Amino acid sequence: MLKPGATIGILGGGQLARMMALAAAPLGLKCHIYAPQGDNPAFDVAAAVTEADYDDEAALQRFAAAVDVITYEFENVPARTAEVLAAIRPVHPNPHALAVTQDRLTEKSFIRDLGLPVPDFRAIDSLDDLKAAAAAMGGFGVLKTRRFGYDGKGQAMIRPETDLGAAWEKVGQAPSILESFVPFDRECSVIAARSANGDSVAYELCENEHRHHILARTTLPAAVPAALGHEAMAIGEKIAAALDYVGVIAVELFVAGDRLLVNEIAPRVHNSGHWTIEGAETSQFENHIRAVAGWPLGITRRRGRIMMDNLVGDEADRWEALLKEPGVHLHLYGKAESRPGRKMGHVTRLLPENG
Amino acid sequence: MLKPGATIGILGGGQLARMMALAAAPLGLKCHIYAPQGDNPAFDVAAAVTEADYDDEAALQRFAAAVDVITYEFENVPARTAEVLAAIRPVHPNPHALAVTQDRLTEKSFIRDLGLPVPDFRAIDSLDDLKAAAAAMGGFGVLKTRRFGYDGKGQAMIRPETDLGAAWEKVGQAPSILESFVPFDRECSVIAARSANGDSVAYELCENEHRHHILARTTLPAAVPAALGHEAMAIGEKIAAALDYVGVIAVELFVAGDRLLVNEIAPRVHNSGHWTIEGAETSQFENHIRAVAGWPLGITRRRGRIMMDNLVGDEADRWEALLKEPGVHLHLYGKAESRPGRKMGHVTRLLPENG
Repeated sequence: MLKPGATIGILGGGQLARMMALAAAPLGLKCHIYAPQGDNPAFDVAAAVTEADYDDEAALQRFAAAVDVITYEFENVPARTAEVLAAIRPVHPNPHALAVTQDRLTEKSFIRDLGLPVPDFRAIDSLDDLKAAAAAMGGFGVLKTRRFGYDGKGQAMIRPETDLGAAWEKVGQAPSILESFVPFDRECSVIAARSANGDSVAYELCENEHRHHILARTTLPAAVPAALGHEAMAIGEKIAAALDYVGVIAVELFVAGDRLLVNEIAPRVHNSGHWTIEGAETSQFENHIRAVAGWPLGITRRRGRIMMDNLVGDEADRWEALLKEPGVHLHLYGKAESRPGRKMGHVTRLLPENG
Repeated sequence: MLKPGATIGILGGGQLARMMALAAAPLGLKCHIYAPQGDNPAFDVAAAVTEADYDDEAALQRFAAAVDVITYEFENVPARTAEVLAAIRPVHPNPHALAVTQDRLTEKSFIRDLGLPVPDFRAIDSLDDLKAAAAAMGGFGVLKTRRFGYDGKGQAMIRPETDLGAAWEKVGQAPSILESFVPFDRECSVIAARSANGDSVAYELCENEHRHHILARTTLPAAVPAALGHEAMAIGEKIAAALDYVGVIAVELFVAGDRLLVNEIAPRVHNSGHWTIEGAETSQFENHIRAVAGWPLGITRRRGRIMMDNLVGDEADRWEALLKEPGVHLHLYGKAESRPGRKMGHVTRLLPENG
C-alpha cells in the first residue's frame, strides 16, 4: 500500500494519463509520466516526466527506479517493456492481463473459457482459413487483426459478396480472427475496478454511439432492462477477478435483443467512462489510482442522467459556446494540434434523473 | 479572452495554487507557478515552474513574459511585485483590489463606504489611540494589525481588564485597528466570482467553524434565514463589482441575530469554498480560472447538503480511514512536512438534501 507522497509511474502521455494524474493529485500522490517524444498533454500536469521510447531499456530502468508503482494508459505496451519494468516495480494491471487483451484470439478464448457470452470466432492465418471460416459463418463476419487494432483500424466487414482476397489484403495478411457478425441493437460498456485485496466495484452499464468507428456519445442509464445492466456489471467484475486484475478495466458489450455478448476488453481506463468524473461519486480515474496504490475503492454511485460527448477534431472549436451552456462540464485535453479523428476533449452533461 | 492552450501564471505554490492548476487543466489551460524555494505542492501539477523570490524582478519579468495572464493564491503579494508584473501582463484580481484588502483600515473603510454593514472600527497608531478607542467601545474590542494578519495571527482580544500596553506589544506596535467586539451567533462566508465582462455569480452562504483561529469545518446550507443568505450573496457580488474585480473573492461575515456584518475580504479562492469542488456544479477554482481567462462563469448550483472538514496537522494521518468511508472526497495537498496548525488536506461529504 502506497503512502501519500508516493509516485505513480504512468506509461503514455495522452489524455487518459492526463486525467489519471489529475485524479492522483487530490489523493496526495505524484505522477511521473513516461512517453516518447511527441504531443504529450499529460506532461503538463505531472510532477516528473521522462521523454523516451518504449524500447529504451536504460530509460525504462531509471523510470522504474524513480517511481513506486507503474501503470499505463494504453493496452499496446510492448511485452518486453512490461517485463523490464515489472522486474523493478509492481506493474498494474499485471502484464498477463496485457498479454491476454493484446491479442483478440487469446482475449476471445479467455472470455469464452470463463463461460461468458461471446460472438463465434475463428483464427485466421491464411486466405484459405478466411474462406473456410466465412463459409462456416454463412458468409457474414468481421475480420479483425489479432493485434494492434483500435477505432476500427485493422478491420474488414465480410459479406457474401465480399472479395475475400481484398479483405485479407486490407488487414495486411496479419494473423487475424473472423468474428461472426452480430446484428446488435446497442453497443454498451461497463467499467469495473478491482483493488489489490480483490474487492471490486462496477459502474452502471452505459450505452455508446460511434461515428466513423470512434466513440461519439455515451449515455446513462442505458436503455436496457435492469437485469441486463446488472449482468453486465457482474461480467466486468468476473473478468477482472479472472485476470487477477488491479485497476480499472472496461468491457465493451453488444446488446442483441435480451442478450449480452462481450465484444472486447480494454485493460485501462476508458473513453466510455469519462462521464464518471462528474457523473459518479468516484471517477474511473480516481478508482484506477486508488487500486494501483493498493488503496480501497470508492463508491460508483451515479448522479442523475448522463450524456457525454466526445469532441473529435474541430468539434473542440466549439469550446466557447460549450462554456456558456449552464451545467456543461468541458474537458479539453491540451493537445497542441487538432486533426480529423483526433480526440481533443469531451463534454459531460448531468441531467435531472426524472427530467 | 484566452484561447485553450494559453498559460496562466500563478503566484504562490501552495494548495490553493495547486487546486487552481487542477481546475485549469480540464479547460485546456496550462499553469506556470511562481513561488520562492520551499515546499511548493503546486509544482507537482504545473506545466512550468519558476522558483524565485517575490522581489527578484528579473525572474518576475521572465515569468510575466512567459505567461498570458497572472493571478495569485495569497493576498499578501507585495505591491512592487504586482506592479512589475502588471506592467507586462494583465494581473487578476487587479492590484487595486490587493491594495484595498491588504490593509484592514482601507478594507473596512471601503466596505463601510459601500453602505455595507461592518463592525465599528478605529485606526490605532499608538497606545494612546488604543486607550481612547477601547474606552469609546466600552472596553471591548479586537485589536488587529492593519497588514499581514491571518489565521488569528497579529490579533489581541481587548476586555475591560486587558492590559492595553501588553496588547499593544502583542501586535508589535504595528499600525492596527480596534474593531468593536461582535457577539456573533455564527461565522459565515460567501464566495463570489466576477468575470471580465462584469457578470457575477455567488455560491450559497456557508457556515464556518474555527478551531485555534483556523477553519475547521464548513457546512451548507448555513442555519440562517434564506433572506440573510441572499443578502450575503448580494454583498459578495456588490463588493466584487465595486473593486472592478475579475476572479473569485471571499467575504467573511458574522451573523448576529438577524443581522449580517462583513468581517473581512479575501481577494482569492478561499478555504471555505473547497466544498465547491464536488458540492457545486462549477468549483470556485474553475470559476476563478474561467474569470482570469476572460471566459464566462459556470453555474454555482449546490449538490446536496455539504460538510467540509479541514485536515490540519496530524489529522491528515487519518487518510486511510477516510478513504474507506463511502462518499467521502479526500483531498491531500501533497505537502512534504506535516506541522501542527498546517493545512494538510480536507475532506468533503455530500449528504442527501433531506437526509
